[in-house]
Amino acid sequence: MNKLNTKMFQMSFTNLVKQPKEVITQFMNSFDIVLTDCDGVLWLAEEPIEGSAEVINTLKELGKRVFFVTNNSCKIRDDFVKKAKKMNFKCEKDDIISTAYLAAKYLKSKGFQKKVYVVGAKALSQELELVGIKSIGVGPDAVQTSFKNTLEEFKADPDIGAVIVGDDEHFSYVKMFKAATYLSNPDVLFVGTNSDEQDPNRYDYIVPGTGTIIIAVKTAAQREPFIVGKPEAYIADFIKNEYGMDPKRTLMIGDRCNTDILLGTRCGFQTMLVLSGITTFKEATQRKQSKKQEEKDLVPDVYLEKLGDLLAYMN
Amino acid sequence: MNKLNTKMFQMSFTNLVKQPKEVITQFMNSFDIVLTDCDGVLWLAEEPIEGSAEVINTLKELGKRVFFVTNNSCKIRDDFVKKAKKMNFKCEKDDIISTAYLAAKYLKSKGFQKKVYVVGAKALSQELELVGIKSIGVGPDAVQTSFKNTLEEFKADPDIGAVIVGDDEHFSYVKMFKAATYLSNPDVLFVGTNSDEQDPNRYDYIVPGTGTIIIAVKTAAQREPFIVGKPEAYIADFIKNEYGMDPKRTLMIGDRCNTDILLGTRCGFQTMLVLSGITTFKEATQRKQSKKQEEKDLVPDVYLEKLGDLLAYMN
Repeated sequence: MNKLNTKMFQMSFTNLVKQPKEVITQFMNSFDIVLTDCDGVLWLAEEPIEGSAEVINTLKELGKRVFFVTNNSCKIRDDFVKKAKKMNFKCEKDDIISTAYLAAKYLKSKGFQKKVYVVGAKALSQELELVGIKSIGVGPDAVQTSFKNTLEEFKADPDIGAVIVGDDEHFSYVKMFKAATYLSNPDVLFVGTNSDEQDPNRYDYIVPGTGTIIIAVKTAAQREPFIVGKPEAYIADFIKNEYGMDPKRTLMIGDRCNTDILLGTRCGFQTMLVLSGITTFKEATQRKQSKKQEEKDLVPDVYLEKLGDLLAYMN
Repeated sequence: MNKLNTKMFQMSFTNLVKQPKEVITQFMNSFDIVLTDCDGVLWLAEEPIEGSAEVINTLKELGKRVFFVTNNSCKIRDDFVKKAKKMNFKCEKDDIISTAYLAAKYLKSKGFQKKVYVVGAKALSQELELVGIKSIGVGPDAVQTSFKNTLEEFKADPDIGAVIVGDDEHFSYVKMFKAATYLSNPDVLFVGTNSDEQDPNRYDYIVPGTGTIIIAVKTAAQREPFIVGKPEAYIADFIKNEYGMDPKRTLMIGDRCNTDILLGTRCGFQTMLVLSGITTFKEATQRKQSKKQEEKDLVPDVYLEKLGDLLAYMN
C-alpha cells in the first residue's frame, strides 16, 4: 500500500475511542479538512447534541478547516450561521455548504444567464438572487378550478433556462407539470438538490424527502437531474475548486451512511460515523458483514456514539 | 408448434390488411374475446376515430365479447358508457374495465372491510362506494400555513386499511406525506391504478401520468404497490375470473406498446397495434429489429393504420 496516495486510516467500523491513545492521536493528525453533516451530528432539529460544539470549536483551534455540509435546501447560509452560533458553534458564512447555495453556485459556474423555474423553498430563490440569477416558482401553485383550465391558461416563460428541484412543502401536480414541460426543451438544465427519500421528524410519521419530489419530476420529464448534494461528488469538487483540498487528508463526519459515508467513500476521504442520528449500530454492523461492494461502500472507517466523545482525546 | 396450446397468429409487426384474404379471415376467426384500449384506438380525447365504432359494433355482431380496457382512473364506468354511446359504440357497463373499477374490485376480492385513503380522482371514491367501501382523501389538500402546522395537526385515521393511488390533479406534498405515513403500517394495503409516466394532451406540454404520483409515494413509503392497470396481468386475471377467458383466443388491441401490447404479450394474447395513437411506425419498427427480449415483448403480432381499416375485411 502506497502511503503517499492513500488515506492513513483504512479501518472498518472501528470504535475510535477504544483504540490505543497513540492511534487516536495519529488519527487526529491525519486530516486537515473536516466536512461535517449537521442534523444528527451537531444538533437534532433545534436541540444541540452534547459536546459537538466543543469538538468542532477545538478542531478549528487545532487549525483544521471545518465545513458544515448539509442537504437541507430550505435555509440560506446566513440562517445556518445563525442557528450554529446560537448553539455555540464557531461558524462563518464560508464554512457553510448547503444545497441551495451549491445549486446556485453550480449554475453560476456554468455561466448561466437565464431564469430558473424553482420547485423548492424560498431559500433556493434567495441563494440564486445572491449570485445574480432570477427565478420563479416558489410558493403555493395548485389547481384552482381544474387542471384543464391550468393547461389552457399556462404560458411557458421563454426565459427559463434551468429547473431546480429541492425540498418543497408546496409541491403539487401543477408544479410537476410545469417543471416537466420546461424540461422537455433539452437545452434547459435540470438540477436537483439531493435524493434523500425521507426526512427525520419527531413524530411517528413518514415525511417525504426531496428525493420523492425529484423522482416524480424526472419520471414525468424522462430526464436525469444533476444532483449537487450528498452523496454525489459535486460537493467535494466544489470545495476542492474553491478552497483546495487533499482528499486523503480530509475527514467526513456523518450520521447517515447512504449520504455522508458514501460521499466520503466515493471521494477517498476518511469517514467517521456518529450514532446520534439516523444510522444505528445494528445497521452499520450488518453492512460491515455484507459481501456486496455497494454495502461495503457505506461502512465508515471509524465510529463514535456521539461527536462529543472525541473531546477527551483532543488535548 | 402445438396449435392447441399456442395462439394461432404469432407474427411480428405484420401489416394485417396487406395479408392474403384467407389469412385475414383466419385471423378474424382466431379469437373470441377482444380487449381494446380506448384513447388512441376508439377516440382521441373527445373526437371519435373514423371507423372504430363500426368495427367494434361488427365484432360484437359476429359474437365476439368486447371489453373496453382503460388505465384512466378519473371516470366511473357509467361515464365511459355515456362517452362510448355518444360516439355510437354499442357498449354496456359490464364491457368497461377501468382502473378505478378494478382497484375497487381488487379490494373487495380481498374481503376488505376498512376505509381507504385515496390519492386520486372522485371516480375512485365513487367506484369504492359502489362496492361498499368508504374512503377519504379526494380533492384539494395542500399546506395551509406551513407543513410544520400540518404535521402538528395531522390525526391519522385508525380505520384506514388501504391506500389507493391514481391520477390526481390535486396531488400535493401533504397527500404524499399522508399516504406514506399510512403505508408505514405494513398491514395497510398499497394499490396503484397504473404506471403511465405521461398522459397525452393536445398542447406541446408534458402532462404527468399516474406513474409519477405512484413513484413519489412509493419512494417516500419505501414500499411497492400492487398495480391493477395495464401492462400488469391483474386485468386479465380479473376478466378470466369474472367472465372466463382463453388467452390464446383473446385479442388485445392498443395504441401503446409499453402498456397494451406488453399486457398482451405477458398474457399470451394475440396483439394488434393501431397507429392512430401514441406509438409510431418508426418506434415499432426499431423495436422489431432489437435483439433485447424486453423490446421484443413490445412488438405486436399485427398492426393497422387505424382500427377502421379492418371494416372492409369483416363481412
